[in-house]
Amino acid sequence: MADPIDMYFDFASPYGYLALFRIDAIAGKHERSVNWRPYLLGAVFQHNGQRSLVEQPLKGEYSLHDLERSARLHGVAFKMPEPFPIPTVAAGRVFYFLHDQDEQLARDFAKAAMTAFFADGIDIRPRETVAEIAGGLGADVQACIDATNDQSYKDRLRDETQTAMDRGAFGSPYFIVDGEPFWGCDRMEMMDQWLERGGW
Amino acid sequence: MADPIDMYFDFASPYGYLALFRIDAIAGKHERSVNWRPYLLGAVFQHNGQRSLVEQPLKGEYSLHDLERSARLHGVAFKMPEPFPIPTVAAGRVFYFLHDQDEQLARDFAKAAMTAFFADGIDIRPRETVAEIAGGLGADVQACIDATNDQSYKDRLRDETQTAMDRGAFGSPYFIVDGEPFWGCDRMEMMDQWLERGGW
Repeated sequence: MADPIDMYFDFASPYGYLALFRIDAIAGKHERSVNWRPYLLGAVFQHNGQRSLVEQPLKGEYSLHDLERSARLHGVAFKMPEPFPIPTVAAGRVFYFLHDQDEQLARDFAKAAMTAFFADGIDIRPRETVAEIAGGLGADVQACIDATNDQSYKDRLRDETQTAMDRGAFGSPYFIVDGEPFWGCDRMEMMDQWLERGGW
Repeated sequence: MADPIDMYFDFASPYGYLALFRIDAIAGKHERSVNWRPYLLGAVFQHNGQRSLVEQPLKGEYSLHDLERSARLHGVAFKMPEPFPIPTVAAGRVFYFLHDQDEQLARDFAKAAMTAFFADGIDIRPRETVAEIAGGLGADVQACIDATNDQSYKDRLRDETQTAMDRGAFGSPYFIVDGEPFWGCDRMEMMDQWLERGGW
């Protein structure tokens, strides 16, 4: 089997949210597995002096329109949450905690947490909230809360963020396939073609 | 026949350049005509406090890579020009001058001028250069030079830029189809789907 696709995303990234519901079909078609890698886009933006798309004049308005249109196209429920953007430290730590036990559980958690935020308007900053979401999938709620205070998961999320930055990631979703980077939900079709043709 | 597609672009926009070679196939498939509308992205960026993509850290590097990859995919010659970006006042004025005589000639000129810049590395700032490019397509070279000094074409380009901004355009290419905006070469597939399905 060929190398997996690395998928970097932030729990508070709306295009990242849409990507979670699109990646399996593309990866499956080309018999690729996917490494789900949440990271902290806030740290990246701070480092690079970037601003969130929706905070920019004109682009912000357009992006909201494009997000709603894209969500309808892909059949994913979406309602721009308030407040936005938010830090996603708790969700990221819980993800890696679950990932160490069960990769599929961690993915289900990512989908559930992002759906809570982007479809149901639930604030996913509190550790209790993300732990409850994980609990709904069968995880131990208290263990999830503990993980958010655990130095090893603090370090893990920080290290994953640093690795992502070192590899050139600056957005969400950001994919790396056989060394080739694809940034954005709107480059997933091109990534699909790249996988189909083995590059060009 | 349904309403035309409005296509806003700047002569110094690399993704706009790629779009010129892709738009006919999409428009033709859906029996739409296209209004080619060069405008001055420099004025828009200044107004909005935006920066050119390639001037931004990380995004700049990625964008160059993505441009080269996209150009190869679409079979369009591309080599990032130096200096970049440049003001495109002369080319814009000549375009509208030609457009008043012959729409197809103006389109051929746009393709030729952008190919000169993005494939052959020719600086298209000087009015003489753009006039020569138009001359190569049968236009009157001196009349083109005169047009760049003509107040009515100065006003025309400025007004087109203002209209584009009033309609929400902030990038290149920027399309408006039946009131629906599509920003970027990487949204042309979605625009194609939109035309196919009549929205969703």
